[in-house]
Amino acid sequence: MLFDKFQAMADFQTELSRRDVKPFGAITDEVISATEGVVQGRRVILAGTNNYLGLSYDPRCIEASQAAAAQWGTGTTGSRLANGSFAEHVALEAEMADFYGVGQAIVFSTGYAATMGMCATVAGPDDVILLDADSHSSIYSGVKLSGAEIIRYRHSSPDDLAKRLRRLGDRAGRTLVIAEGIYSMLGDVAPLQEIAAIKREYGAYLLVDEAHSMGVLGETGRGAAQAAGIEDDVDFIVGTFSKSLGAVGGFAISRHAILDTIRYCIRAYIFTASSSPSVVASVRQALRIVREEPERRERLWDNATRLYNGLRELGLPVGPAVSPVVAVEFTDREQAIAAWYQLFDSGVYVNLVVPPASPSTNFLLRNSMSAAHTPQQIDHIITAYRGLLDAGLATPKTAA
Amino acid sequence: MLFDKFQAMADFQTELSRRDVKPFGAITDEVISATEGVVQGRRVILAGTNNYLGLSYDPRCIEASQAAAAQWGTGTTGSRLANGSFAEHVALEAEMADFYGVGQAIVFSTGYAATMGMCATVAGPDDVILLDADSHSSIYSGVKLSGAEIIRYRHSSPDDLAKRLRRLGDRAGRTLVIAEGIYSMLGDVAPLQEIAAIKREYGAYLLVDEAHSMGVLGETGRGAAQAAGIEDDVDFIVGTFSKSLGAVGGFAISRHAILDTIRYCIRAYIFTASSSPSVVASVRQALRIVREEPERRERLWDNATRLYNGLRELGLPVGPAVSPVVAVEFTDREQAIAAWYQLFDSGVYVNLVVPPASPSTNFLLRNSMSAAHTPQQIDHIITAYRGLLDAGLATPKTAA
Repeated sequence: MLFDKFQAMADFQTELSRRDVKPFGAITDEVISATEGVVQGRRVILAGTNNYLGLSYDPRCIEASQAAAAQWGTGTTGSRLANGSFAEHVALEAEMADFYGVGQAIVFSTGYAATMGMCATVAGPDDVILLDADSHSSIYSGVKLSGAEIIRYRHSSPDDLAKRLRRLGDRAGRTLVIAEGIYSMLGDVAPLQEIAAIKREYGAYLLVDEAHSMGVLGETGRGAAQAAGIEDDVDFIVGTFSKSLGAVGGFAISRHAILDTIRYCIRAYIFTASSSPSVVASVRQALRIVREEPERRERLWDNATRLYNGLRELGLPVGPAVSPVVAVEFTDREQAIAAWYQLFDSGVYVNLVVPPASPSTNFLLRNSMSAAHTPQQIDHIITAYRGLLDAGLATPKTAA
Repeated sequence: MLFDKFQAMADFQTELSRRDVKPFGAITDEVISATEGVVQGRRVILAGTNNYLGLSYDPRCIEASQAAAAQWGTGTTGSRLANGSFAEHVALEAEMADFYGVGQAIVFSTGYAATMGMCATVAGPDDVILLDADSHSSIYSGVKLSGAEIIRYRHSSPDDLAKRLRRLGDRAGRTLVIAEGIYSMLGDVAPLQEIAAIKREYGAYLLVDEAHSMGVLGETGRGAAQAAGIEDDVDFIVGTFSKSLGAVGGFAISRHAILDTIRYCIRAYIFTASSSPSVVASVRQALRIVREEPERRERLWDNATRLYNGLRELGLPVGPAVSPVVAVEFTDREQAIAAWYQLFDSGVYVNLVVPPASPSTNFLLRNSMSAAHTPQQIDHIITAYRGLLDAGLATPKTAA
C-alpha cells in the first residue's frame, strides 16, 4: 500500500493533536506589526520568523506592491522565458547586480527554486559537487537533480573539505563547493575565509547560499562572503527575498558573464511562472531600504546580542556565538514540545524544529531576531524562557 | 572547466542576438489588458500566455491583492510549517477543497513546487512511478527526487500503460501513475477514461496534473478528470494558480485524508516560504470568479475554436483537435525563428518552443487563447499567420 510510509508521521500528528494549536503550521489570524501577531486567538511576540530587518510590514513596501498590482495585474501567467519577463523583473535583476557589484543576476519565483535550480545546473554529470553535510533541503534537491557526483564534507570543516578536494586530484577543477552563509537552524556562520582559500588552492568553484545572511551580514549587507572579505572568490551567490526583504522569491548573482547563459538551462526557472509584479515591486523597495538604512542591520545585531546574552545567562544551551538565529537545544522530544506550548502560552511564538529539519538528532526551539523587536519584547522572551527553567521544562547547560 | 557544457547554449544566444528583441525572455514594457501589451516598444496582441480566463488583469483580483497587502504585509517570511500559515492560506485551502468536493487541499508557493513536491513524496524508494514520456519538467524533477523506480509509458497511450502495469505484477499496487489533463505544448487532452480504467484494473494510484486544464475543462471547471467523469478514480490532483487563476502558486487536492499527513513530508513545501498574502487573496477572488462566471470558459472555447479553425483552414500543421493551446509545428529551426519575428513585427506575440521544451525534435509556435480575446484579435492573429505563408516562412500541411 502506497500510504504505509506515512504512518509514523500520522502517529506524530495524533500526538500533537491533543491541543487546538499545533507547533507546526499554527495559524496567524492577524498581523499587528513585524514582531506581533494574533496566532490562533492569542496575541504573541513573533520570535520565530525570518523577518530579520522587519520589512514584511513596511508601509513603503506595501505601497509599492499595491501600485504594481494596479499597473501590471496579479500575475504574468508565464515563465520568464516566455511572456513572464515584465520590466519589473528585469529592473530588479539590474538592481541586484548593482547591489552586488557584478554584471549578472537572475530573479526566481522562490528562494527554493533559486538554490535548487542553480545547484542542479552549474554542475552536471561530468562534475563533482562537494556540499556541507548540514545543507538546506533546496541544496540537497538541487545536487540530486544535477547528475553530478555528490560528496559531503563535515559541517563547516575546512580540513575535511581540503582532504576531499585533494583526493579528487584533477577533478577538483570540475568541482563545485557549496556552503551557506548563516546556517538557518543553529545560526552559525560558515568559515568562508578558510573555504575560499581551499577553493583557490585546488582551483574549484564556490557557490554560497546567503539566504539567511543577505541583508544581515557584511558592510553593505551583501552577506557572509562580504563580511569575510572573500567575494572575489565566490563564483555564485544564491539567496532569497523571503527573509530580510520580507517578500517571496530568490536570486542568483555571479561575476561570471556565463550566468546569463546558465539562465537558459535552469529547468526550475524555465518551467516556472515568474513572480507576481506586486511581489517584485515590494522586493525592489525593500532592497532600496537595505541600502539606505544600514542602521536596521545594527539594530538587528543589538537585538540578537541582547537575546543571546539573556538566554546564555539563564544557562540555556545556546550556540557558541551571537547570531540573529538563537537556537536552544533539547535532547527530549516531549520536553521540547511542552516547552514550545509553555512559551506560546506566555505570549511568545518560536519555531519548534525536529529532525530531519534540525541538523542533529536533537530538537530545537529556534528563536530569530528582527531589527523591529523592542528591548521590552526581547526581555519578555527571556522571561518566558526563565519560566521554562522554573517549570523544569528546560535544562541549564551546566547541569546537562 | 565547469562551464564548457554551456557552450552550445551560448552559441544559440549569439545566433539570437542579431536583433534587440529575443524570442526567449522578451520584455513586457506595459500591460494594456489581459490580451494586449507593449513588448520592447511594440504594441502586440498577447497570444502566448497561459491567461486562459483573462483574470490576470481583473480589477476585482487586483483589489483583493491590494487589500491583503495592506492587512497582512508583503510576505510571511516563513514556511507554512513555521510562521507562514496565515488565515488567508488556510481559507484558500478550504475553498480549493470545497471547489473539488474533497476533504483535503494543500496550497504551495509555485505550481512547480506543488507538482514536484507531490511527485517526490507520494511514491518513495519501495514504490514505482509510471509517468507519461512527455511529462512536464516539474514531474520529471519530482519523480527523480522520489527515489521510486521510474518507468515511462508512451505519450497518452493506454495500451502501453496497461502493458507496463501488467509486467509489474504485485508491484502495481505500489505504483503511482501520472498524467496531465492538457499537455501544455501541443494542447492535447489525456485519455483519462482509459487511463482510469487501467488504473482500477491493476489497483494502482493515479495523480493528474491539471495545470493547463483547471478552470478550462469540466462542467464546473475542475479540469480534465471532471470532463472525463473519472474524478472518483483520481487519487491526487495537482495544479497551478499561474494560469487560469492569473496569479502564482500551486495546489494539491485529494479525496484521501492522508493528504494532510503527506503535507508534513513534502520537502519543497516544508522548506519554502509561503506565498505572499496579496497573491493568495487574488487567487481566492479568481476562484470565486471561476465558480460564478462559467461563461468565461465558454468564451475561451469559442475563441479556441475560432483560432484553430482559422489556422487549419490556412493549411497550417495544427493538432488533431480544438484546444486553448494551438501549436503550429516546424521542422526547421531557422524558419521557426524567422516566423516568430515576422509574427512579432505583425503585432502578435506567441511562444517559440524548441527542444527539449517541445515534446519532439520539432519546433513550435505555441498560440494560446484567453476568454478575453476578441474575435477581431483572433482574426488579426490568423491574418498574421497568412503572412507567414505568403512569405514562405510556413509550410501548409498538405504540402509537407
